[in-house]
Amino acid sequence: MKAPGADVGSQPYGTPSPYEKRLIRNIPKNLKQYTSASSRTPLQDLDGIITPNGLFYERHHGGIPEIDPARHRLMIHGLVERPLVLTMDEIRRFPSESRIYFIECSGNPGFEAMTGRTASDLVGLVSCAEWTGVRLRTVLEEAGLEPDARWVVAEGADAAAMTRSIPMEKCLDDAMLVYSQNGERLRPQQGYPFRVLLPGYEGNMSVKWLRRLNVTAEPIHAREETAKYTDLMPDGTARQFTFVMEAKSIITRPSGSQRIAAGFNEITGLAWSGHGRIARVEVSVDDGRSWTEAHLQPPVLTRALTRFRLPWTWDGTPTTILSRATDETGYVQPHFADLTAVRGTKSFYHNNAIIPWRIAASGEVANGFVKA
Amino acid sequence: MKAPGADVGSQPYGTPSPYEKRLIRNIPKNLKQYTSASSRTPLQDLDGIITPNGLFYERHHGGIPEIDPARHRLMIHGLVERPLVLTMDEIRRFPSESRIYFIECSGNPGFEAMTGRTASDLVGLVSCAEWTGVRLRTVLEEAGLEPDARWVVAEGADAAAMTRSIPMEKCLDDAMLVYSQNGERLRPQQGYPFRVLLPGYEGNMSVKWLRRLNVTAEPIHAREETAKYTDLMPDGTARQFTFVMEAKSIITRPSGSQRIAAGFNEITGLAWSGHGRIARVEVSVDDGRSWTEAHLQPPVLTRALTRFRLPWTWDGTPTTILSRATDETGYVQPHFADLTAVRGTKSFYHNNAIIPWRIAASGEVANGFVKA
Repeated sequence: MKAPGADVGSQPYGTPSPYEKRLIRNIPKNLKQYTSASSRTPLQDLDGIITPNGLFYERHHGGIPEIDPARHRLMIHGLVERPLVLTMDEIRRFPSESRIYFIECSGNPGFEAMTGRTASDLVGLVSCAEWTGVRLRTVLEEAGLEPDARWVVAEGADAAAMTRSIPMEKCLDDAMLVYSQNGERLRPQQGYPFRVLLPGYEGNMSVKWLRRLNVTAEPIHAREETAKYTDLMPDGTARQFTFVMEAKSIITRPSGSQRIAAGFNEITGLAWSGHGRIARVEVSVDDGRSWTEAHLQPPVLTRALTRFRLPWTWDGTPTTILSRATDETGYVQPHFADLTAVRGTKSFYHNNAIIPWRIAASGEVANGFVKA
Repeated sequence: MKAPGADVGSQPYGTPSPYEKRLIRNIPKNLKQYTSASSRTPLQDLDGIITPNGLFYERHHGGIPEIDPARHRLMIHGLVERPLVLTMDEIRRFPSESRIYFIECSGNPGFEAMTGRTASDLVGLVSCAEWTGVRLRTVLEEAGLEPDARWVVAEGADAAAMTRSIPMEKCLDDAMLVYSQNGERLRPQQGYPFRVLLPGYEGNMSVKWLRRLNVTAEPIHAREETAKYTDLMPDGTARQFTFVMEAKSIITRPSGSQRIAAGFNEITGLAWSGHGRIARVEVSVDDGRSWTEAHLQPPVLTRALTRFRLPWTWDGTPTTILSRATDETGYVQPHFADLTAVRGTKSFYHNNAIIPWRIAASGEVANGFVKA
């Protein structure tokens, strides 16, 4: 403090402290290509429920396009009375809403990928932000729906032309077209200049870099709703259109790769459900023999991350800690064994199993699915 | 979309689109020095209630220090039973809480500074984030308060050694020591590695880069609570210890330097009060002759920014639009003339006047305090 610090003008757009350089997105190493890939939010190092935009998870199928908003257009056509081509300025002129929602990748984690070291490795394909945009309903009403209109096919302007069919019921309910994330314009990784947002649905359906809405009578059966994003069941059939992400939770502290000391430790983590609000999170510090209800940090919002906390005094004995979420529908997060008993071993998406963290006598925390 | 976009690994810590380069903090030009200065949040270009960390307003008095958290310590001494010196790791081990609060500079704007062009020029010294940290009460209880303990003097590690006296009542109520902002670690500009946060109190008291808490029987009468941050009244006396920021609001769209078209325009803006929740925001589109209650976007949280919205069809006639906030105590945001009638013309801080935006026939929006 003996010398003046940096000027107020030194960072017109601020960045984290140089001492936090390690706090970045969790990007897989040694993949064959990164154009269709994902990066994960470092959940174990974050607090609260808001994910900062710089650390929001990414998943894209044809790389991140760089779109000039002045040249970008949204076409709305198909079973509508008045086909529309809208500019960004026109989209921003509609009545707006701001809401806090999570977005989660459908494969978070894949059923075969329970061996990650950290909370981010396991379920880092979920993030939460305050989104602003226009209700999809408002835009569809501007175009006017014809009587047979049952689905809306959303198409992105990325190199993958990501295409998903959205049931009309969701389009007319809480679906949004969003252009803002945590106050500022959407980031390129999140669909700049704007994207669909379907609260509680698998993230892939919230089509980014949106350029087209085709109103149809039937779903289009695109690649991402047939070959991918369907759930292969033990009998060889596939569940299609499994949209809603079910209740899930994870303890983020203490969690894998961290180390705790004996004595007081706060157990904290995140819970969420695509069906609505989180009603309850229970924590077990004895590998599931007994459960204690954790405190839910207000505000507890529908289809948003919810932070839970439980004070705990660790006596230094090796143990396994778990969390289990219940949402407002009464649905309870299952154990992995119960999930695979129904879904088999060939399923990939919609794994919302309870995550166990094993704590050694040294205080080292590790993934309970991996043998010590 | 004919070529793949950027790789998932191209930005381990993400940044805004290159097309949003203009969306930066509003930094004054041609000041004599920038070590004791401020930058403002570009409110007119933001949506929702969360301010992204890169655009959070700054105000510092000795520049931004670069602090190594591994070497930083917090000393708690004075009228305590057990003086403490805490490391960052020790502070993070206390039970934590996350809450969404605004922080606002006391002079936002100064009484003499009503001529700004934009919403940011006028009241850009306010921002809002989700903060995580420990209750100040928890840390003080760890040290143990002596019977005479009535104030806590907080001191920063910046070159200004920012020092403020905080009444014990606030310290034991909702005051926090925060280390996280919108999920990630506090930014250097906001007090990294941690700061005081006094919800609803003038921002200067939420001492950044905190290094010392001295528990005392009396306030210390530091420079920033005598020569500065007091309110000079018409009779020559000064109001001291005017901590709470009173109810305020501003329309951010349409606002100064923007241009609207005739027809439908959503009027939207922000309201906040240091006394608690916003109860009501009224908007006038006829220079105060009539008022209409705006919609408040949930969640409406205590001592947080609240977003309001009102649909409006502009007929193209020149007019002036206003907003007026009422908080849960029943306090109503005053007109500037009513404020100066009581406070005189020599006052600087705690100006929460109604801000008028004048709309010309061309649709150009300008500060209503400035003659056309």
